[in-house]
Amino acid sequence: MAPSLTTIIVAGGRGLRMGKEIPKQFLSLGNRPVLMHTIDRFLSYDPDMSVVLVLPEDQFDYWKELCRHYRFQASYQLVAGGASRFQSVKNGLNAVGDCDLVAIHDGVRPFVSFGTIERCCNVAMKKGAAIPVIEVVETLRKIDHEKNEIKPREEYRLVQTPQVFQTSIIQKAYEEAEQISFTDDAAVAEAAGYEITLVEGNRENIKITSPFDLLIANALVKHEDDL
Amino acid sequence: MAPSLTTIIVAGGRGLRMGKEIPKQFLSLGNRPVLMHTIDRFLSYDPDMSVVLVLPEDQFDYWKELCRHYRFQASYQLVAGGASRFQSVKNGLNAVGDCDLVAIHDGVRPFVSFGTIERCCNVAMKKGAAIPVIEVVETLRKIDHEKNEIKPREEYRLVQTPQVFQTSIIQKAYEEAEQISFTDDAAVAEAAGYEITLVEGNRENIKITSPFDLLIANALVKHEDDL
Repeated sequence: MAPSLTTIIVAGGRGLRMGKEIPKQFLSLGNRPVLMHTIDRFLSYDPDMSVVLVLPEDQFDYWKELCRHYRFQASYQLVAGGASRFQSVKNGLNAVGDCDLVAIHDGVRPFVSFGTIERCCNVAMKKGAAIPVIEVVETLRKIDHEKNEIKPREEYRLVQTPQVFQTSIIQKAYEEAEQISFTDDAAVAEAAGYEITLVEGNRENIKITSPFDLLIANALVKHEDDL
Repeated sequence: MAPSLTTIIVAGGRGLRMGKEIPKQFLSLGNRPVLMHTIDRFLSYDPDMSVVLVLPEDQFDYWKELCRHYRFQASYQLVAGGASRFQSVKNGLNAVGDCDLVAIHDGVRPFVSFGTIERCCNVAMKKGAAIPVIEVVETLRKIDHEKNEIKPREEYRLVQTPQVFQTSIIQKAYEEAEQISFTDDAAVAEAAGYEITLVEGNRENIKITSPFDLLIANALVKHEDDL
């Protein structure tokens, strides 16, 4: 039997980095908001999974209005975000019911492939915690005060989401106190003593945080439409 | 007086990574081959600069045919590439005449901004060697055998081109023997004892090496046309 999965989609964007009024998760991509693409991507992968959407509470009304407008009828549980990403994920975890695995995913990464989700789930079932990564394709340099030096890029990876964990592991990890060094969920699990396994992500799985990203995203949506 | 500049554009691509017959530099972008965009970008920045185009010798005929077909009449010097990138750049350097600065640029980076070129030239005039870099926007991990750990991404940069040098510096650096660790020209200069200064690149300045890159590139060209 396939493991039961709950996906927590975290959409905390206030949109400041886009230079626009509208939070990133609501930006229009193709024919509807980014966040609807992301939710649908997971439910298309597995229509039986539970989805928890974590959104700032003051965006609930706007989101519901968008859902009416776009006739978006996906099934998910809406949970209020917290003061930080850590707090938001924690709120999401509190809403997770009985399941084998929890996937935690950025709301502004609508192009995660089914292969990436599947690889993360398979490895997390065996190893406890799995995150998708891609190779560094440019030359990499490290800055050290006034100096800088080349680092071997083949030893580095860029991290994406979903970050997938056995439910008990990630719930236990999030009982620890928040640290500012927690840039993602893998960092939280690691701080609690768990080991993270890296699996292959997909290059299109970009995080939409700049106008340049949105340009790429629209090209990707158009490309998918053309296929 | 503005410093005199020669740009060496290195187009050694055999196209293997694209899964297509046609070398990357000849792929169609908008209405013409990538390489024509790249050459024009530099000549638009400074119509008085000298351009040296380094191309595998067995692609000369095909390139000339493309130039006739697209009525591409830019002024540049055509030089045969060598067995490696190092050898190709060395051949290009041998063709460089009297000038203050040499910029070395990937033929498949047509979206370098004028700002990036200018910043590299200004800093290279003062400091000897300047290369454009951008920040790492994803979480970064380093692999160490079976383990992996988060690295502080704010201490790392991704390297682009053009890499700009005072002419005497880069010519002297390329007199040294080739090493396999030379992934770019900055590495060659560094091995010869010169210090590299990092300047701000531009995010659109992607290296077109995969179908995904070509998709982005076509979106960027269309975006420029729309402006």
